[in-house]
Amino acid sequence: MKTSLDPRLRLTDEEVGRLDAYWRAANYLSVGQIYLLANPLLREPLTREHIKPRLLGHWGTDPGLNLVYVHLNRAIVARDLDAMLVTGPGHGAPAIIANTWLEGTFTEVYPSVSRDEAGMGRLFRQFSFPGGIPSHVAADVPGSIHEGGELGYSLSHAYGAAFDNPDLLVACVVGDGEAETGPLAASWFSDVFLNPARDGAVLPILHLNGYKIANPTVLARIPPDDLLSMLRGFGYQPYLVAGDEPARVHRELAAALDRILDEIAEIQRRARSGERIERPRWPMLVLRTPKGWTGPAEVDGEPVEGTFRAHQVPLQGVRDDPEHLAQLERWLRSYRPEELFDATGAPVADLAGLVPRGHRRMSANPHTNGGTVLHDLVLPDFRDHAVPVDRPGLPMVGATGALGGWIRDVITANPDRFRLFGPDEVESNGLADVFDVTDRAFLGRTEPGDDHLSPGGRVMEVLSEHLCQGWLEGYLLTGRHGVFTSYEAFIHIVDSMLNQHAKWLKVTRDIPWRRPLASLNYLLSSHVWRQDHNGFSHQDPGFIDHVTNKKAEIIRVYLPPDANTLLCTMDHCLRSRHYINVVIAGKQSAPTWLSMEQAVLHTQRGLGIWDWASTDTGHEPDVVLGCAGDVPTLETLAAADLLRRHLPQLRVRVVNVVDLMRLQPATDHPHGLPDAQFDTIFTRDKPIIFAYHGYPWLIHRLTYRRTNHDNLHVRGYREEGTTTTPFDMVMLNDLDRFHLVMDVIDRVPGLATRAAHLRQMMVDARQECRDHTRRYGEDHPQIAQWQWPG
Amino acid sequence: MKTSLDPRLRLTDEEVGRLDAYWRAANYLSVGQIYLLANPLLREPLTREHIKPRLLGHWGTDPGLNLVYVHLNRAIVARDLDAMLVTGPGHGAPAIIANTWLEGTFTEVYPSVSRDEAGMGRLFRQFSFPGGIPSHVAADVPGSIHEGGELGYSLSHAYGAAFDNPDLLVACVVGDGEAETGPLAASWFSDVFLNPARDGAVLPILHLNGYKIANPTVLARIPPDDLLSMLRGFGYQPYLVAGDEPARVHRELAAALDRILDEIAEIQRRARSGERIERPRWPMLVLRTPKGWTGPAEVDGEPVEGTFRAHQVPLQGVRDDPEHLAQLERWLRSYRPEELFDATGAPVADLAGLVPRGHRRMSANPHTNGGTVLHDLVLPDFRDHAVPVDRPGLPMVGATGALGGWIRDVITANPDRFRLFGPDEVESNGLADVFDVTDRAFLGRTEPGDDHLSPGGRVMEVLSEHLCQGWLEGYLLTGRHGVFTSYEAFIHIVDSMLNQHAKWLKVTRDIPWRRPLASLNYLLSSHVWRQDHNGFSHQDPGFIDHVTNKKAEIIRVYLPPDANTLLCTMDHCLRSRHYINVVIAGKQSAPTWLSMEQAVLHTQRGLGIWDWASTDTGHEPDVVLGCAGDVPTLETLAAADLLRRHLPQLRVRVVNVVDLMRLQPATDHPHGLPDAQFDTIFTRDKPIIFAYHGYPWLIHRLTYRRTNHDNLHVRGYREEGTTTTPFDMVMLNDLDRFHLVMDVIDRVPGLATRAAHLRQMMVDARQECRDHTRRYGEDHPQIAQWQWPG
Repeated sequence: MKTSLDPRLRLTDEEVGRLDAYWRAANYLSVGQIYLLANPLLREPLTREHIKPRLLGHWGTDPGLNLVYVHLNRAIVARDLDAMLVTGPGHGAPAIIANTWLEGTFTEVYPSVSRDEAGMGRLFRQFSFPGGIPSHVAADVPGSIHEGGELGYSLSHAYGAAFDNPDLLVACVVGDGEAETGPLAASWFSDVFLNPARDGAVLPILHLNGYKIANPTVLARIPPDDLLSMLRGFGYQPYLVAGDEPARVHRELAAALDRILDEIAEIQRRARSGERIERPRWPMLVLRTPKGWTGPAEVDGEPVEGTFRAHQVPLQGVRDDPEHLAQLERWLRSYRPEELFDATGAPVADLAGLVPRGHRRMSANPHTNGGTVLHDLVLPDFRDHAVPVDRPGLPMVGATGALGGWIRDVITANPDRFRLFGPDEVESNGLADVFDVTDRAFLGRTEPGDDHLSPGGRVMEVLSEHLCQGWLEGYLLTGRHGVFTSYEAFIHIVDSMLNQHAKWLKVTRDIPWRRPLASLNYLLSSHVWRQDHNGFSHQDPGFIDHVTNKKAEIIRVYLPPDANTLLCTMDHCLRSRHYINVVIAGKQSAPTWLSMEQAVLHTQRGLGIWDWASTDTGHEPDVVLGCAGDVPTLETLAAADLLRRHLPQLRVRVVNVVDLMRLQPATDHPHGLPDAQFDTIFTRDKPIIFAYHGYPWLIHRLTYRRTNHDNLHVRGYREEGTTTTPFDMVMLNDLDRFHLVMDVIDRVPGLATRAAHLRQMMVDARQECRDHTRRYGEDHPQIAQWQWPG
Repeated sequence: MKTSLDPRLRLTDEEVGRLDAYWRAANYLSVGQIYLLANPLLREPLTREHIKPRLLGHWGTDPGLNLVYVHLNRAIVARDLDAMLVTGPGHGAPAIIANTWLEGTFTEVYPSVSRDEAGMGRLFRQFSFPGGIPSHVAADVPGSIHEGGELGYSLSHAYGAAFDNPDLLVACVVGDGEAETGPLAASWFSDVFLNPARDGAVLPILHLNGYKIANPTVLARIPPDDLLSMLRGFGYQPYLVAGDEPARVHRELAAALDRILDEIAEIQRRARSGERIERPRWPMLVLRTPKGWTGPAEVDGEPVEGTFRAHQVPLQGVRDDPEHLAQLERWLRSYRPEELFDATGAPVADLAGLVPRGHRRMSANPHTNGGTVLHDLVLPDFRDHAVPVDRPGLPMVGATGALGGWIRDVITANPDRFRLFGPDEVESNGLADVFDVTDRAFLGRTEPGDDHLSPGGRVMEVLSEHLCQGWLEGYLLTGRHGVFTSYEAFIHIVDSMLNQHAKWLKVTRDIPWRRPLASLNYLLSSHVWRQDHNGFSHQDPGFIDHVTNKKAEIIRVYLPPDANTLLCTMDHCLRSRHYINVVIAGKQSAPTWLSMEQAVLHTQRGLGIWDWASTDTGHEPDVVLGCAGDVPTLETLAAADLLRRHLPQLRVRVVNVVDLMRLQPATDHPHGLPDAQFDTIFTRDKPIIFAYHGYPWLIHRLTYRRTNHDNLHVRGYREEGTTTTPFDMVMLNDLDRFHLVMDVIDRVPGLATRAAHLRQMMVDARQECRDHTRRYGEDHPQIAQWQWPG
């Protein structure tokens, strides 16, 4: 197995010297950010007063990142590459920030951090300092699409960025710590989904510096042959560069990068010349250099450079221990800053030759500020896909099935900027129509009988929610659009990824040079109420709760009750910017309640009274039946039907909620309904029986400041379920029509006595349904065939 | 690379025939469960009435699982193995259930499902039938520790089961779909943490049946050399058995298993003979057989066997399409049931020879019903680790640091049944004392300077929360104990795993033959308020909310305010059974408020009035200051101090909450405080200013039915943060002492005017603190040095 390069010593000594000087400059600036409050160029001897009171940031990974950065710059200049960098070890921000300052971008977006001594002082001071910028490669850092605080997502972000960007090279540093995480481990196989003809290239750089916080890394301690064997197994051609002697490493790394970039260019040339595309063996780099390279070799008698002790801040005692302080000064001076920065504090001219120009700088690549290259989607008219409604409830259609045709047309109209992502569930979630016009992206071997697989497919299916989410985030962050469709229960798999993306969106709202991105759209089908054959393990509606913890400005939750409202909702989501939109809709055949005209109005309002289902015309109602979600809406309408037939004098108002955030006060969420309107709809003092899709208390949370909250009674999922029929499921959770009627009887003053007979009928009906189901394995025909009376 | 076996044709034709008959029997029973309501032995021609109305369950994976099962049985009998099986493809429950019935265990736990025709009928009918058992290898299935509805966790569960069970063989079928998930991908490296001298063996069986729901799998479509290269890279010696001709596959599989089991035995012999332990190259099996093997080759002209169309139920139309019905009958009869079951419907005697005896049956292995082999921990007295308290607030200690010594003693006292799990954070989370007596488990290459690494270490550290969680679950499910310590924000990575374990605990409470397990204990340190150098990406207290969605019977959340209460709490958690305990505690130096004696009482009560901090002695208070969590408690006490000094007439009551579930009504949670007690403590009508660790509305949720809820005002984390000082963090979220005083002034009737001056002082103090921090990068000395007045 050919893995290590013969060092092709193509660099001249002068070139090595220049690379090394640049690297020293970046290292100097990295150390400066961690330690220095003042005296940035060491014009005077270092004293306690020059040192930050809290030493934050991670040194261990910085020299490796700086090395990668300057060598990528050399290649960018030499080849005029369109390149960006995803930095997995996010704690290495001092390195990335140092480079953005060296190439001028940092100063362009933060003019006060000028490229002179005063600016360098500000650069140092502001790092991880109150009121400054955070300690990771956060959104504040130009050129970043990946903060890297939580580990595992770098490589999937890199692939997402490369999709549909044929001229882009996405280099991605994967730390050997991060490589132990599941999401990263799954990402290696992304090459099976990258089309060399239409997508850009990803260059994974596995950086083995050997240690995590307190442990060696697994990949650094398995036999090197095993490591290379694993990477080849993933489909890559790994090139290994290892060493701790700078000049030699510079030469080998430059040679390896040249060879890798030649191979990438050749793969792309062949794929784009019309040759039949097969999965190429993409090259990648394994870089093994010491942790904390060029830092203190020993501190207090303990080895530091090349060990886990270099992970964070290697000299902790500089404010109090004169020996530490002296050691820090020797360390800083070892980079010979006087050779690197001129009298004003600016980088010397000799370094400038290594800096790419304008947008070729990785920190200024427009793809990394996705909003600047974002184009609106061309959206076909969703009304063309309207389900014609004969009368409320008819016809029965699968909501996602009706949506599929529109998504198909979106794909057709946007061949370069929209993809659909899902863990092998696009077809089972009802969206099979998309395969009329496209395929699933797949570069693996195909066989006769395979269904819609091709390298150019716009549907990204892999059995990893992490990978779907990571790819989509990378795609959105570089200015494109997409939808992630998945099972409702298992979207929790990406809870923590959602957190990080939500934080990115929240922070970037306040960074003026960042531009809004397309929203992250979730279409969750196969939801909690219709796990007829999957049972309890597939039942969890808690993703809504998880999302609702994020900042109100960026989250939206929609529960369209039927096909037409789903169409309107998705059109709205695909037009929106910088949100996380969660849409929950069924795939099974279900009633269509609203004509498209009604649906548009209802979706725009977000919630509203359904007059045609209510019996309170012109009067204050005796009871409000609220509902959100397709199954709860069906049960609510069936309950309204029962009430109308059995208690015709009772004034019932049916309110359906599509946009869950309308329930919150306007002070808490931009979509919140003003209190006066809320009171008009839900009354100030009448009982509200609310049938909700998820865990009931979320409705209490959203409404607890509303006037009539004390009269609100919510039914929802209370964590009861198994493999059973749809109606048995709602009965298990007391969300069924009969129970809703019982709730009305129990809550409307005076009804308990008057409607005792009806209540008993409801109890009996539940028992009859349960018996029937236990006996025949299906729902009672009266349930299965129930329709809203015409 | 040697990967495929020469078929050593050691089996006689008779042996092959017997294995094949058993396999046919299991396949027959699998198909029967999916389709048949009646006529289980096909005594009469199959008619529509014999068919279930809803066809559920997955056929595709069943023949492969049945094949593995019978071959493992052969080896168990031949070698008297102590073995169990983890079934990754959980949808293959028909196969596993079929085998448990064949070997008698199913009938032992469900006597009505007898081993005769009537019992077989019940076996078929109850599968995925309302009132029956679910469609996965759920807790209802004897021998299962792994339901497999959500994919990704089989192999980590298997390794968890093998730890500290030296005589156990844990076979684990990994589907090639599941193998695409991140958590599974990370699990391959578990071999780096398995000690051949002290742990059992794991036998991974990668089952390549080639397809997921609608797609081929990645691993089946990459070049076979790449697959084997990948597995060797993970450290395994893969043996490949592939084919679609049963007799040949039986022979090759038996030979491969024999060779694998010989190699495992040899690895263990060497490791246990005193040889220096190094990481062995464990053997594993790659089994490539057709999806839906032996099922219908074609349906309606489309190929089915060996394609994705065999994934679920291959003949969907049997109730309505006579051709489908006839095809099903031919399929069932192809197994020749008349040769497999005797006149009564019991398996024929010839099959019985392949069934292991008693506890050797995988479905009856006691390890798979962990509660039956669970031994209490020997718990040293936590009072011996008490922090002596001079006066409230002194001394300052790190809570987890104080706990570390006790955990160390727990490890010493329980060398065979307790482990500590964490993603490289045991030391950074303050528990370094454990390394006085043990190491980190590690079988990789070690180097001089490595810190506490050895094969026998009791601390399991890998940078994968998924792996930590999966290992711990496997360890608990097989009757042992453990603690998972992690960063609070990143425990969301395992949200979905938590869901599945919570469902397992919920369901097994009602399965009489299952016995309670040790609780799953989370110790979350490095929490939201103390991410001084990590910033926003590391701030998320929402795991509490996620957990609180699960069934009240199994979840517990504790927020000990100091070191002594943390010690009491952890002692309680390690004694508890069948819960998920979430404990959140700080690692940084912080005040110790309670003596151990007080702490024991306070923790037992779960919440209580801190008289020493209150000024309402003998009276109804004017305001209640509630608090939960270490940082909110500190701010609350500092606020109480300010109020006492500046408004000495104000009657302030301080209430601290350790056990969050005490806030819920007793009807909602077993720990819920009765309403009368709640009202006594929190009053019926006085303002409550509650300083809470997490997202504020959880406190509203827990208390919204309490009398005084309308007067409750909660401060908590509102998703504001960055890299800054601790006090700046609480100020960013209005949780600081000054803001709490302002809240009191704003809420206590009549105080707004009387205390206007104080309010302005508070505003000014906040500004002064903010200015100081922005200027000097540290907290104002008056904040940093504040102490509770002695």
